[in-house]
Amino acid sequence: MNFTSDNAGPVPAAVLDALARANAGHAPGYGADELSERVRDRIRTLFEAPNAAVELVSTGTAANSLALATLCQPFQTVFCSPVAHIHEDECNAPEFYTGGAKLTLVPGADKMTAEGLRATIAAEESRGVHGPQRGPVSITQITERGNLYTLDELHALSAVARDYDLPVHLDGARFANACVALECTPAEMTWKAGVDVAVFGGTKNGCMGVEAVIFFDPAKHWEFQLRRKRGGHLFSKFRYLAAQMDAYLEGDLWRELAGMANARCAALAAGLTGVADIRNVPQGNMLFAALPRRAHRALHEAGARYYMWEGELDGHDDSEMLTARLVCDWSVTEADIARFVEIAKGA
Amino acid sequence: MNFTSDNAGPVPAAVLDALARANAGHAPGYGADELSERVRDRIRTLFEAPNAAVELVSTGTAANSLALATLCQPFQTVFCSPVAHIHEDECNAPEFYTGGAKLTLVPGADKMTAEGLRATIAAEESRGVHGPQRGPVSITQITERGNLYTLDELHALSAVARDYDLPVHLDGARFANACVALECTPAEMTWKAGVDVAVFGGTKNGCMGVEAVIFFDPAKHWEFQLRRKRGGHLFSKFRYLAAQMDAYLEGDLWRELAGMANARCAALAAGLTGVADIRNVPQGNMLFAALPRRAHRALHEAGARYYMWEGELDGHDDSEMLTARLVCDWSVTEADIARFVEIAKGA
Amino acid sequence: MNFTSDNAGPVPAAVLDALARANAGHAPGYGADELSERVRDRIRTLFEAPNAAVELVSTGTAANSLALATLCQPFQTVFCSPVAHIHEDECNAPEFYTGGAKLTLVPGADKMTAEGLRATIAAEESRGVHGPQRGPVSITQITERGNLYTLDELHALSAVARDYDLPVHLDGARFANACVALECTPAEMTWKAGVDVAVFGGTKNGCMGVEAVIFFDPAKHWEFQLRRKRGGHLFSKFRYLAAQMDAYLEGDLWRELAGMANARCAALAAGLTGVADIRNVPQGNMLFAALPRRAHRALHEAGARYYMWEGELDGHDDSEMLTARLVCDWSVTEADIARFVEIAKGA
Amino acid sequence: MNFTSDNAGPVPAAVLDALARANAGHAPGYGADELSERVRDRIRTLFEAPNAAVELVSTGTAANSLALATLCQPFQTVFCSPVAHIHEDECNAPEFYTGGAKLTLVPGADKMTAEGLRATIAAEESRGVHGPQRGPVSITQITERGNLYTLDELHALSAVARDYDLPVHLDGARFANACVALECTPAEMTWKAGVDVAVFGGTKNGCMGVEAVIFFDPAKHWEFQLRRKRGGHLFSKFRYLAAQMDAYLEGDLWRELAGMANARCAALAAGLTGVADIRNVPQGNMLFAALPRRAHRALHEAGARYYMWEGELDGHDDSEMLTARLVCDWSVTEADIARFVEIAKGA
Repeated sequence: MNFTSDNAGPVPAAVLDALARANAGHAPGYGADELSERVRDRIRTLFEAPNAAVELVSTGTAANSLALATLCQPFQTVFCSPVAHIHEDECNAPEFYTGGAKLTLVPGADKMTAEGLRATIAAEESRGVHGPQRGPVSITQITERGNLYTLDELHALSAVARDYDLPVHLDGARFANACVALECTPAEMTWKAGVDVAVFGGTKNGCMGVEAVIFFDPAKHWEFQLRRKRGGHLFSKFRYLAAQMDAYLEGDLWRELAGMANARCAALAAGLTGVADIRNVPQGNMLFAALPRRAHRALHEAGARYYMWEGELDGHDDSEMLTARLVCDWSVTEADIARFVEIAKGA
Repeated sequence: MNFTSDNAGPVPAAVLDALARANAGHAPGYGADELSERVRDRIRTLFEAPNAAVELVSTGTAANSLALATLCQPFQTVFCSPVAHIHEDECNAPEFYTGGAKLTLVPGADKMTAEGLRATIAAEESRGVHGPQRGPVSITQITERGNLYTLDELHALSAVARDYDLPVHLDGARFANACVALECTPAEMTWKAGVDVAVFGGTKNGCMGVEAVIFFDPAKHWEFQLRRKRGGHLFSKFRYLAAQMDAYLEGDLWRELAGMANARCAALAAGLTGVADIRNVPQGNMLFAALPRRAHRALHEAGARYYMWEGELDGHDDSEMLTARLVCDWSVTEADIARFVEIAKGA
Repeated sequence: MNFTSDNAGPVPAAVLDALARANAGHAPGYGADELSERVRDRIRTLFEAPNAAVELVSTGTAANSLALATLCQPFQTVFCSPVAHIHEDECNAPEFYTGGAKLTLVPGADKMTAEGLRATIAAEESRGVHGPQRGPVSITQITERGNLYTLDELHALSAVARDYDLPVHLDGARFANACVALECTPAEMTWKAGVDVAVFGGTKNGCMGVEAVIFFDPAKHWEFQLRRKRGGHLFSKFRYLAAQMDAYLEGDLWRELAGMANARCAALAAGLTGVADIRNVPQGNMLFAALPRRAHRALHEAGARYYMWEGELDGHDDSEMLTARLVCDWSVTEADIARFVEIAKGA
Repeated sequence: MNFTSDNAGPVPAAVLDALARANAGHAPGYGADELSERVRDRIRTLFEAPNAAVELVSTGTAANSLALATLCQPFQTVFCSPVAHIHEDECNAPEFYTGGAKLTLVPGADKMTAEGLRATIAAEESRGVHGPQRGPVSITQITERGNLYTLDELHALSAVARDYDLPVHLDGARFANACVALECTPAEMTWKAGVDVAVFGGTKNGCMGVEAVIFFDPAKHWEFQLRRKRGGHLFSKFRYLAAQMDAYLEGDLWRELAGMANARCAALAAGLTGVADIRNVPQGNMLFAALPRRAHRALHEAGARYYMWEGELDGHDDSEMLTARLVCDWSVTEADIARFVEIAKGA
């Protein structure tokens, strides 16, 4: 019963198998091999974007930072949520890769609204050369708080960006979970919704470490490649990145894995109804739920692992409600869910 | 018959097996898992450095740049060979990671001499606040031209650095090949020879993508970790980096693989004697050899792959000597060598 | 009647005279001349800080950014007000000079409170290597909204910083106006109040362009000098920076000029009472006051110049209140004030 | 008798007078005042470049670094002489402002040749994404060793740059001395010779601290202004920069001052012939001349000041030749020259 993070789970056998298959004989390095080329083609096909520039990197922070650096001048600012991963969890990587750009936070608890975004962009207007210049809008889908932008909401945000001629970046560390939840295609959630560059995350959804960065306008392709190399993110034995992504794409494994994770999370929320205060409506694979301290204690003793989001396990009031963050990766089983719910209810 | 680069070959089964073994159940992310901890311990043991700070990253460029950034202020300069990988082949990654430090090239064709290093450092002395300040000395072992520093030479270089109170960085992308060639221990080639931070490369010698960075003085450990995160080089599913390194260490696989590569290269040089001008004395796994154009043509037609270092295959003079760079990775076979030699001699 | 900014006014004759006096014969460059040395000594004496490191630069942005870069690692964050000049008006200069550090905004309308600062610093605590690390606290005295920190408030803010072992930077573009308003010594407003590095601004208060940066602990002196040079801020003909500062210090001219500016501003606020809504209690040289549109129109036609802070001159409702920002520099006369008040009242 | 540097001399009265004239009443800040506008126009007229973007900064390092940063991406490299000021004397400012670009040194002792430049650019060709990409060519006119590029040489260098589609930067810290020596117009030495961005230096030739940066293609104007602000180089009281430049332009004062400096230097070289080994043919205001130690001693005792370029004053052999760098600024008098020569000959 491990709900600490999507990065805590194992990879499916298909990924290991793909690595083994890719491990035959010699192959050109740095992405010039056939497998890497095929994978890039498959992503273009999946995204219905035959001209897109597609590149792979091994971490989400690299994907986001390199994408933003390619879109954002050092004297500009990126508009994002105050709880965006790029702001809270990347130790200034976007600032580093952009050469010192700023992040301007759109007020709110999690998801940006079109109105909030517009007001924030508008407020950055009157200082001429003195203030930072307006730069990209960055959207996290699914958000760090487990919330989902609808396609309409994505369209509305990108329309604001377009009004100011600003590019749109989609941090898709949980892209698959979102796509499954929205029952939409990757194209619908990206370029058809006004996204200019998308990160199609593999790592949190069953790969060892691979993310695709997709520029729907390929004009910045060469610059991205140079920035990737300069960041130390160009793998020499590139086929092992490509193999993971190949397995992930094969038979829409990415959808299958995300579907499993989302379903478990929904089952967990449903099971905990009554005993827990459900703090978000989990549409992806992340649940925030408040349980009495006694339930946490019982779960902890039974070996359940997860992050306490608000409150601390130590304390005297056994009935006090403490909020847990519960993340389901693809490998969480129905049995895990059932047991977790049973213990929580029993306590 | 592929001699293009050490990054062109496959990984040994032990690496795949280790990944599969590591793939069981859930594990903490970001290097907090038991396997990652064990691997760091094993490296400390291997290097006879119980207090060293040990971290893993996935590429050599990341390893070098992060290590240098941790040692070098942006107003300083790194002393290195004019053909150092950090200068020629990292698209300004050291300049990026250090925040704009300079690289000062020690004149020469490949290996730095203690005299040359001393003269170059001394020349950077008289400008006060106007010139760059002296920073780390970076040594590539084995060099990009296939040459090996003896232990005495390493001691002499680090003695110069110590005279100026400068730290020493060892770019060990081919650390294993060097250690095997010198028949020495990792400790003898690093801290016992005055090295402050060493990169113990796995990628070129049979891993998918993993390098260890070892600070013998752990004072900079936390800063290194922050810089790694900020560079997007902290793997969330860290166990898959650790598993590769674990396999690499197990039973001294790293020595075995490098021994194979070095032996093949020596056999290649021996076999080509007479037909080729051997341009370096290959002590590691890299041979520079000049062959007549007709021999290159025959090899090319037979499917041999390698980089032409000087000269071009197209041309009229069949007897003209063109220099090839021939790199043996661990997976090159004795049969490959024999066939290559046979074709070269036959042409 | 020009109230647009303190940078709109001329310099007093004493500054021109000092430049002329400094213009005799040859002198060493880069601050090695006698005049520059004397000026640094005078500042140390003024601040009762015989061991302080003192350097001059020509702009406030340079002074702040270089001071912060010397205190702040690129993986850290600076705590400041949401309306701090370093955040709103320096086009990402702090991010540039620090190599990509972040600015974390302490919620509020202008002045930071000790409680707000503590809560903001505390919130930056739990992310380990993932979040930015805590860096310097930056205080603007007088603030960009014309508000003044009392000595008690400064002590309280620096006490919070000290609790977290963070250095304190004082942006003193209007240092003199604050000192006069507080009737305190420079030492009382800086190191005695827990400030580690202070900017003693000359430009806004009557110099052409000179700011002193004072590190009360001189350990970072050499690094600051290197960063200044690297930023292109080391004047070769340094004596012309020093001469301005020398005149500014002579006979406490800095106090006299700030006293004049503050007095004019107070007179303006007093004069406008009744006709205007005074939005801040002007303790320095900056007044925010709402006047009816008809008054603005009359002032505008009479040649008065200032920035409209809220609202626009164009509009139909003549009685609508629009807020002006009115900044008095030393050269504003009593007659200017009287005339401004008379026109406002007449309209 | 001070020959240490052009930054050691005073400014002519015209510069002080212009500052005094500019010091009347209030004026808009940041270069929006009439004087600043007029000065930019005058420079456009002087350079016969009505569409050029013209901006002022206060130091040569700022001018060079900001110009290069506007032309050079962080993954590129600047081609320059091994003794260029941007390489040797700016403490990594170009690396800082460009965000970590590299400087590639064209082999040679001082002036670049077209052949050398071509070979160096060509050598940076074959590494694809791995090596730095080709960036601007930077030419120092007059060089740091007192040598002058002819117009033909400038044309030849810029033709090489054009062949590779690279922009050309002219470091003109001693622009005026060069223009006088070549008896050419500013246009002939810049855009007519293929220069894309020129620095028209005022500081070394009689101003307190002002340099004009001129982009002949104004497309990068706004970016330059943002980078200037971000670097802390946008003066608020801009009129005092503009006033210096205005005086410098008035009646071609810049030519007159440089003519004086060049003439003194020529007289010094002529006077020393016979007693000294003249190491360069001084065409500008800088002479390298070897004199016996005894002559140096006599000069030193008589109060002459200059840098010893090779050799040290302390030593036993009175007849040993030691090389001095002798720089004449505009304020050096004929009497200074006569006295220097007399002492040198007498010794």
